[in-house]
Amino acid sequence: MSARKLLILPGDGIGPEVMREVARVTAWLSRKRGITFDVSEDLVGGASLAEYGTPIREEVIQKAREADAVLFGSVGDPKWNNVGFDKRPELAILKLRQELGLFANLRPAKVFDALVDASTLKPEVVKGLDIMIVRESTGGIYFGDPRGIETLPNGEKRGINTEVYTTHEIERVGRIAFEMARKRKNSVCSVEKHNVMESGLLWKEVITDLHAREYSDVTLSHMLADNCAMQLVRNPRQFDVIVTGNLFGDILSDLASMLTGSLGMLPSATLGAKHSDGRMPALYEPIHGSAPDIAGKGIANPIAQILSLAMLLRYSFDLETEATMIENAVSAVLATGLRTADIMSEGKARVGTDVMGEAIVREL
Amino acid sequence: MSARKLLILPGDGIGPEVMREVARVTAWLSRKRGITFDVSEDLVGGASLAEYGTPIREEVIQKAREADAVLFGSVGDPKWNNVGFDKRPELAILKLRQELGLFANLRPAKVFDALVDASTLKPEVVKGLDIMIVRESTGGIYFGDPRGIETLPNGEKRGINTEVYTTHEIERVGRIAFEMARKRKNSVCSVEKHNVMESGLLWKEVITDLHAREYSDVTLSHMLADNCAMQLVRNPRQFDVIVTGNLFGDILSDLASMLTGSLGMLPSATLGAKHSDGRMPALYEPIHGSAPDIAGKGIANPIAQILSLAMLLRYSFDLETEATMIENAVSAVLATGLRTADIMSEGKARVGTDVMGEAIVREL
Ligand SMILES: CC(C)[C@H](C(=O)O)[C@@H](O)C(=O)O
Ligand SMILES: CC(C)[C@H](C(=O)O)[C@@H](O)C(=O)O
Repeated sequence: MSARKLLILPGDGIGPEVMREVARVTAWLSRKRGITFDVSEDLVGGASLAEYGTPIREEVIQKAREADAVLFGSVGDPKWNNVGFDKRPELAILKLRQELGLFANLRPAKVFDALVDASTLKPEVVKGLDIMIVRESTGGIYFGDPRGIETLPNGEKRGINTEVYTTHEIERVGRIAFEMARKRKNSVCSVEKHNVMESGLLWKEVITDLHAREYSDVTLSHMLADNCAMQLVRNPRQFDVIVTGNLFGDILSDLASMLTGSLGMLPSATLGAKHSDGRMPALYEPIHGSAPDIAGKGIANPIAQILSLAMLLRYSFDLETEATMIENAVSAVLATGLRTADIMSEGKARVGTDVMGEAIVREL
Repeated sequence: MSARKLLILPGDGIGPEVMREVARVTAWLSRKRGITFDVSEDLVGGASLAEYGTPIREEVIQKAREADAVLFGSVGDPKWNNVGFDKRPELAILKLRQELGLFANLRPAKVFDALVDASTLKPEVVKGLDIMIVRESTGGIYFGDPRGIETLPNGEKRGINTEVYTTHEIERVGRIAFEMARKRKNSVCSVEKHNVMESGLLWKEVITDLHAREYSDVTLSHMLADNCAMQLVRNPRQFDVIVTGNLFGDILSDLASMLTGSLGMLPSATLGAKHSDGRMPALYEPIHGSAPDIAGKGIANPIAQILSLAMLLRYSFDLETEATMIENAVSAVLATGLRTADIMSEGKARVGTDVMGEAIVREL
């Protein structure tokens, strides 16, 4: 196999420091498993704004296109809060999604047994929780035209955004959800607002057809987005895979994450369509933000970033064994009682970013 | 004062049976407090579809326009699930909102001390919770044009909806939120997605300006919708009043409701702009649905419908004393241990719809 090209984009805030712990894991992969990467690194977000005046350079997008996988940290820095709509740090991730065609955002929400008490929900409600939200991520209201703010003849302003979904866009993300489900508990819940939105009505129809045509072995249900938000709070374990559009997915996946009580633990993947040469564009990132308030203090939790690497090994390089080894090492380290500040609880041992990273590699 | 015109629309499922308990309370109002109503009643939702082939007749909308207040039950019946987009029972409520200009949907999420254990969240997280969500309800993506499903030249379909907000629409609902906050804990959190949607950017600007101009005594914060969903799970008591658009409001208010663990307890109000004659269009309804699975069994919880009447007395007729009396009676009855099935817990006395209604009136 030719060298595995990996582009690392640490970004802002705690991004760079949690990414350093990933380096320990890739060193282990090379040392003990003979798995090596051709790594390059670049700036995005506030870091790129400071250096180049743009949240992401065309050059970096090009590098991402050529990489086999992108490992992303996090972007956002209060310094750039008022920088204007066309320069905000979030554009780094939005542009990567769109330019690389990363249409399927996979957001696992999983409760680790050792952390079941971290949730604000009762342990009996969330113990064993394991949901996979598949969120469409290059379409919908984030990218539809017309959009903008216009001034009306009477001087008032009018803000507009357009939600658009085509059969093709819905089908391809639906397919990812059904494939995921087959490897999990074989059940998909499709979420929209077909009772008030025609784009939701089409969503429901297309998913229903696709299911009947190609995935009738998978259990399919449909749920309105408002009800889904309620059900995630009432009884989250009823779900296996949830598939939904960009905007609902943004809200529901964050909601699902918070059920676990420990954002510092959760990775994500965003996948594109396979090219004719078999390569699949893919980006992996923790779901937590850049956490500027704790950046540089050495106390951030590196686990979500390390688990993002595990997802990368699994989905981009088919290294299921190594992915599982890393996930198990994380569980084992938690079981020994080590905790970073964000997941600290009474009677446990509080450690910093580097000690946590080291412990995981030692466990490996 | 001239007769208070009240239009009662029980709707489907448990609507009619919980509305019967409201009649006990209005009888008490007349007997003991000398407060009377000129009541008329009509069909909506599935009940109207069955009788007239439409979820709501123009005649009923006209009656609602002429009423001082509308007390709504709930609509929706599985029988009408596949009736088509232009006949679905939900149109009853959507049309009433739009035709009467009911732009501000007030959704309290309140945890009663006696029911703190009903929540799936830990009691220490939700005890004393008291949030008011002000949701814009005649604009945004529910009503914007263009909308629909079109067939593309290649045979694919494309679903479209448009989110539109004008300065005026944002300002008037913002004003309601700030006014509410002044009577509560004086704090408003405005929620949008200004980082990806220009309509959200305008929302944020307009609320910020309005605050600076007219409500600088109220504490204002801004939050992204995805973060708000997380914060509602992480630490819901940080909120007093939340103001947001139609679609985010739909999801976030349902999420907030579920934090209380007892949907059968929660009322809502939807208000319009005062006419020149001082009348304000207003509709009151429980947030629970028509619950077809338990309809007709006499076990539904009438409290949300009764508390909707309390909101009606407060907002439409300035009968603060009577509204508070009813709310206190509900608390007192819960404290004695009476529970309908939906809020039942060990050691309490399980009662039906009518016994609960009677007990509240006896307490009054
Ligand atoms: C950074 C931001 C644009 C993004 C979004 O809203 O999609 C984030 O919230 C996410 O969920 O990935
Ligand atoms: C009935 C339906 C159209 C409605 C909505 O989505 O607005 C409901 O969910 C609500 O919250 O009032």
